[in-house]
Amino acid sequence: MPTFKLTIAYDGTNFSGWQFQPDCRTVQGAVQKAWRQITGENVSVSASSRTDAGVHAQGQTVGVDSNTHLTTDQLFSALNATLPHDVIVKQVEQAASGFHATRDAKGKRYRYSICNSRSRPLFERNYVWHVPKPLNVELMHRAGQILVGTHDFISFQSAGSERESTVRTISAIEARSGVGELESRVEIDVEGDGFLYNMVRIIAGSLVDVGVGRRDEKWLADALAARDRRAAGRTAPPQGLCLLKVYY
Amino acid sequence: MPTFKLTIAYDGTNFSGWQFQPDCRTVQGAVQKAWRQITGENVSVSASSRTDAGVHAQGQTVGVDSNTHLTTDQLFSALNATLPHDVIVKQVEQAASGFHATRDAKGKRYRYSICNSRSRPLFERNYVWHVPKPLNVELMHRAGQILVGTHDFISFQSAGSERESTVRTISAIEARSGVGELESRVEIDVEGDGFLYNMVRIIAGSLVDVGVGRRDEKWLADALAARDRRAAGRTAPPQGLCLLKVYY
Repeated sequence: MPTFKLTIAYDGTNFSGWQFQPDCRTVQGAVQKAWRQITGENVSVSASSRTDAGVHAQGQTVGVDSNTHLTTDQLFSALNATLPHDVIVKQVEQAASGFHATRDAKGKRYRYSICNSRSRPLFERNYVWHVPKPLNVELMHRAGQILVGTHDFISFQSAGSERESTVRTISAIEARSGVGELESRVEIDVEGDGFLYNMVRIIAGSLVDVGVGRRDEKWLADALAARDRRAAGRTAPPQGLCLLKVYY
Repeated sequence: MPTFKLTIAYDGTNFSGWQFQPDCRTVQGAVQKAWRQITGENVSVSASSRTDAGVHAQGQTVGVDSNTHLTTDQLFSALNATLPHDVIVKQVEQAASGFHATRDAKGKRYRYSICNSRSRPLFERNYVWHVPKPLNVELMHRAGQILVGTHDFISFQSAGSERESTVRTISAIEARSGVGELESRVEIDVEGDGFLYNMVRIIAGSLVDVGVGRRDEKWLADALAARDRRAAGRTAPPQGLCLLKVYY
């Protein structure tokens, strides 16, 4: 059966995450429903990443095995006309035979966004974590470099979705402040070959602990070495997280 | 009784507009409820502008007559801690005796935002009007200058909230495209001494008619001269509109 590769974006605010659940509004459920309305087929779609409730995506990759006769252009238009207002399709491609969105992902880039101002965010409230204490972003960036490389990230994993191996490779961590109107925005980009459950959010929470001066820069090395979840920082809230891009 | 002048911002998406209605979620209702919770007083607050459902504000001005013993700093903190997540207070000041937010406003600046791209907006969907056809923004700007000055704007008024005089002075209309990541964003700023019901939204709708080539540049002069609502363009949808600033 042919496989289609969709690149989709969504606002996770009003979704109970990616993964289908019978009585909840989920992104997977929305995509499968739209596909059924368009083609009549009941498909089970795969994603590169099963994002949690409240987490957003700019570039989630979805795989669909389908016998539809519709072209990729037709699917693109029909999906965008059918999907709810908080999901859009950015691209529809024919995938290589045997393509699987989860298994074949070689890497991912996430962005964690923070509003670093005394006053609480308004229009961006569903897309940032509000941290009122001033952050030393340069220090956060430097501390982040300790995590770059291949490490056992078991200290940076929440219970609930255990993987066989907890070793992952992070290829880049970049923390930076916004400029101009966005000067109160702090963004942390994390790129790697794969991520444990809540790993990016625990990295973001730990870097904020460093940024507000609660922990020093070298503490992250100790947290890694401890191989204990309690050694790392708190889990940053979901709404600041966005899946930017998946590499195949 | 002393009067306080509040500068507030709100996301109008989930409000039935500014004006209090017993069984609806309104901004006026939210402010009055917060004031009551903080001070115990039942106040009726005035605003510079009674924004419609879905319309936003960056700088709405609100007047409150109150005998509270709280300082402006205490009110600022207490209001921001009490108001719902889609309203924030930016400033609390002691106003001159007799200040009235509606009556004393000398001018206002509104911004109308458009997403001018084939694909529909996602994260900004509640803050823009989606216009898929390409807009000639320079032409829109030039056409807008026809409306600058003192004119009878009766053609640019919706029925439903008649004013004694329909003559208003517009001091500036500026239409511009965004740059960089915001290149699909088109903003129309309109500043004037006062506005008729839906006037900014009808101006935005008319400028879009010019921008897509449905009407030529000089049509706006005819629309003004006609003194007939049907001579002007359609009313742009509410979510693109934001009250930026009020002048006293």
